[in-house]
Amino acid sequence: MSDNTKFLLDESKLPKAWYNINADMPVPPEPVLNPQTLEPVTPDFLSVLFPMSLIMQEISTEAQIEIPEPVREIYKLWRPTPMFRARRLELALDTPAHIYYKYEGVSPVGSHKPNTAVPQAFYNKEAGTKALTTETGAGQWGSALAMACNFFDLDLEVYMVKVSYNQKPYRRMVIENYGAEVYASPTDRTQYGRSVLAEHPDSPGSLGIAISEAVEVAAMSGGSKKYSLGSVLNHVLMHQTVIGEETLLQMEMAGEYPDVIVACTGGGSNFGGFAFPFVRENLKNGKNTTIIAAEPAASPSLTRGTYAFDYGDTAKMAPVVKMHTLGHGFVPPTIHAGGLRYHGMAPQVSALVNNGDIQAQSVPQLETFEAAMAFTRAEGIIPAPESTHAIAVALREAMKCKESGEKKVIAFNLSGHGHFDMAAYDAYNKGQLEDYEYPAEAIAEAMKELPKV
Amino acid sequence: MSDNTKFLLDESKLPKAWYNINADMPVPPEPVLNPQTLEPVTPDFLSVLFPMSLIMQEISTEAQIEIPEPVREIYKLWRPTPMFRARRLELALDTPAHIYYKYEGVSPVGSHKPNTAVPQAFYNKEAGTKALTTETGAGQWGSALAMACNFFDLDLEVYMVKVSYNQKPYRRMVIENYGAEVYASPTDRTQYGRSVLAEHPDSPGSLGIAISEAVEVAAMSGGSKKYSLGSVLNHVLMHQTVIGEETLLQMEMAGEYPDVIVACTGGGSNFGGFAFPFVRENLKNGKNTTIIAAEPAASPSLTRGTYAFDYGDTAKMAPVVKMHTLGHGFVPPTIHAGGLRYHGMAPQVSALVNNGDIQAQSVPQLETFEAAMAFTRAEGIIPAPESTHAIAVALREAMKCKESGEKKVIAFNLSGHGHFDMAAYDAYNKGQLEDYEYPAEAIAEAMKELPKV
Repeated sequence: MSDNTKFLLDESKLPKAWYNINADMPVPPEPVLNPQTLEPVTPDFLSVLFPMSLIMQEISTEAQIEIPEPVREIYKLWRPTPMFRARRLELALDTPAHIYYKYEGVSPVGSHKPNTAVPQAFYNKEAGTKALTTETGAGQWGSALAMACNFFDLDLEVYMVKVSYNQKPYRRMVIENYGAEVYASPTDRTQYGRSVLAEHPDSPGSLGIAISEAVEVAAMSGGSKKYSLGSVLNHVLMHQTVIGEETLLQMEMAGEYPDVIVACTGGGSNFGGFAFPFVRENLKNGKNTTIIAAEPAASPSLTRGTYAFDYGDTAKMAPVVKMHTLGHGFVPPTIHAGGLRYHGMAPQVSALVNNGDIQAQSVPQLETFEAAMAFTRAEGIIPAPESTHAIAVALREAMKCKESGEKKVIAFNLSGHGHFDMAAYDAYNKGQLEDYEYPAEAIAEAMKELPKV
Repeated sequence: MSDNTKFLLDESKLPKAWYNINADMPVPPEPVLNPQTLEPVTPDFLSVLFPMSLIMQEISTEAQIEIPEPVREIYKLWRPTPMFRARRLELALDTPAHIYYKYEGVSPVGSHKPNTAVPQAFYNKEAGTKALTTETGAGQWGSALAMACNFFDLDLEVYMVKVSYNQKPYRRMVIENYGAEVYASPTDRTQYGRSVLAEHPDSPGSLGIAISEAVEVAAMSGGSKKYSLGSVLNHVLMHQTVIGEETLLQMEMAGEYPDVIVACTGGGSNFGGFAFPFVRENLKNGKNTTIIAAEPAASPSLTRGTYAFDYGDTAKMAPVVKMHTLGHGFVPPTIHAGGLRYHGMAPQVSALVNNGDIQAQSVPQLETFEAAMAFTRAEGIIPAPESTHAIAVALREAMKCKESGEKKVIAFNLSGHGHFDMAAYDAYNKGQLEDYEYPAEAIAEAMKELPKV
């Protein structure tokens, strides 16, 4: 076992391929449905929004998809990312557990999001796309895609959930610094945005609404603009698997293998990117790691949603997929983990949870900030509010070890830093944060809106 | 020559000793004077403010000072830091130069400042100190010392220059997140602060004023509080030399040696930390690197100040040292590079500039932001406004190579990221930033206040 505090990989160890879990899924994939007809979509339908290379990745069943060299060259600006052993946190908790964390906050925009933003921009550029549209919650995805579009000389329109646009002006400025345009969603730039504003002039927005706006702009552009999604889809999760592949190499350097791994999950890309290589090791190579998705109690799709076909967006323009959902009409409370405020969940993650291959836990907001403060005081880094959910579940597991005396190896993904989220910490430190629990009746009500498939 | 984009050192390569340039200075050190008597200070005078171990480091002439193991353990949370070859920037500039940058922004607080904050907190804890006081400009030093005090369980009072306190609320929140108290200086908590406010109720503050306040609180505490300085002093610069020592190893990995190195300089600690190991190689090992200190045109102590004895603070409570100074009454314009708004310069840096061993260039604010944007668009990272001064001078050198066709190797220190400085970029992107040049008459006027030594 290594004495190191951190484990660095030389860039020669940067993965040469993404891992496509479609090749190894223990259950067959459910079809993706056209939102108008509720019949399986054709590549033609998707090609309005995405370049064909990404559509082919979406449905591929090859286990390894080669990472193009121009994408690897940009990855090298921050990848491989470091993995740390949280020795000071272990001491502070007085736990016999060994706690490791992979740290994606070293990317220039401070999160895992560029791992898919860069290839999406690359494949669009290759296909002749001139401009992209997208949505962003907390702003992490928007800034990642803005950086990627800047690298590949593509224009970009970002529809930013209004509550985050107001809470996080610095994120908006970061997006603009890379040359993209940012709009507070719902906007009056789209038919759907105008319809939302007519009914709810004070709407704080939601990822579902922002997705609808970005999709509408691309769909109505006559082909000049394509749409880019930061999570949920198979190819997005696949691009993120560089995280888990690197972590497997780094755990080998550490001389240990995790008994438990944890990542936070909103749409599922951070979780899938970290966890899927470990799922493969469980399914194919005889490992037996407990794999936990950590989600907010205020937006609990995996733990309290229904596994059913539902629309990916609020306006019913995006494809219908089978997933854990709180209903496409769900507008979550304005918790600070803006990136986790999505009504659905990636179909691959949903299928694995449904099949019992992975577990899920929900965490109330105050517990996530308590965990974040314990982490910061021990390790120095200030985590993104999204990432604090993974820390909180890792702490639960570490405290269980303290009770039982077990020396478990726990690894979690610290998906980003909280430098643009200091207002959330300020509110927490002043005792102004609250816990939210979504009422059961509201969830039941939203379920009535599910499409009849 | 390596093909790598970045050069990582395993933590086994973390330096075991700091480099003390006092051992190799080509000119004898000037005495440090008591501000009341203008006679050389005794250790007793300094011991009101600092623990004896740091005072001994201040006057030591040993070339190597061992880094205590508890300090190295904390350094490992982010050190060794990466060095990058800016390949995309070279392409964008179309220069034959090779450009490297060392990146200190990976520390939890995002700058080089913890390199000295951690040992200062350690030695104070060892000496039985219960609480520290300090000043901070942009907030980088305050957050670094707050993190360090948290690690060693020391209380901390931070006097933050008022203009930065108002411009950078997130930095204040970071400091508070590590458990320290922050006050906007000038405050009414000190005799000196009250006297400034009486004369200038709207004073934006300055580092000189904030230093006076922090020194006063420690000096009047009857021994319970010590004072900690984030720059200028010999031991502070020495703690920063881990940067340059690591860079020497990383240049070796890259298979090149720099013809030119650049670092920004406010009080001198970032510059000294990066440059002094290269100065040693020039003086002792036959190297011939051009070494450039980059300072703001709005606060140009090295390029337009006088090399003379002056007070380290505005209230004349801090020791008098021989340095390049704009006069202790100097209150610089409120440029965004808050960390470079100091009237003086580290005595070691001043002596080396005066002796011709290192050069200095000043850069107007707009040029620094233009350089920063070119850097961000090529490399992704958003630099701190202080660090942009080094980028600007590196770009000047790279463009000279483009003209001359020379393939020079240029290395600069990117001392921190700009995540807490987005308001400055927003202002730049909106065309709201201006250049400032300090009027020659004002500088001449301030010179009349120098102590008669």
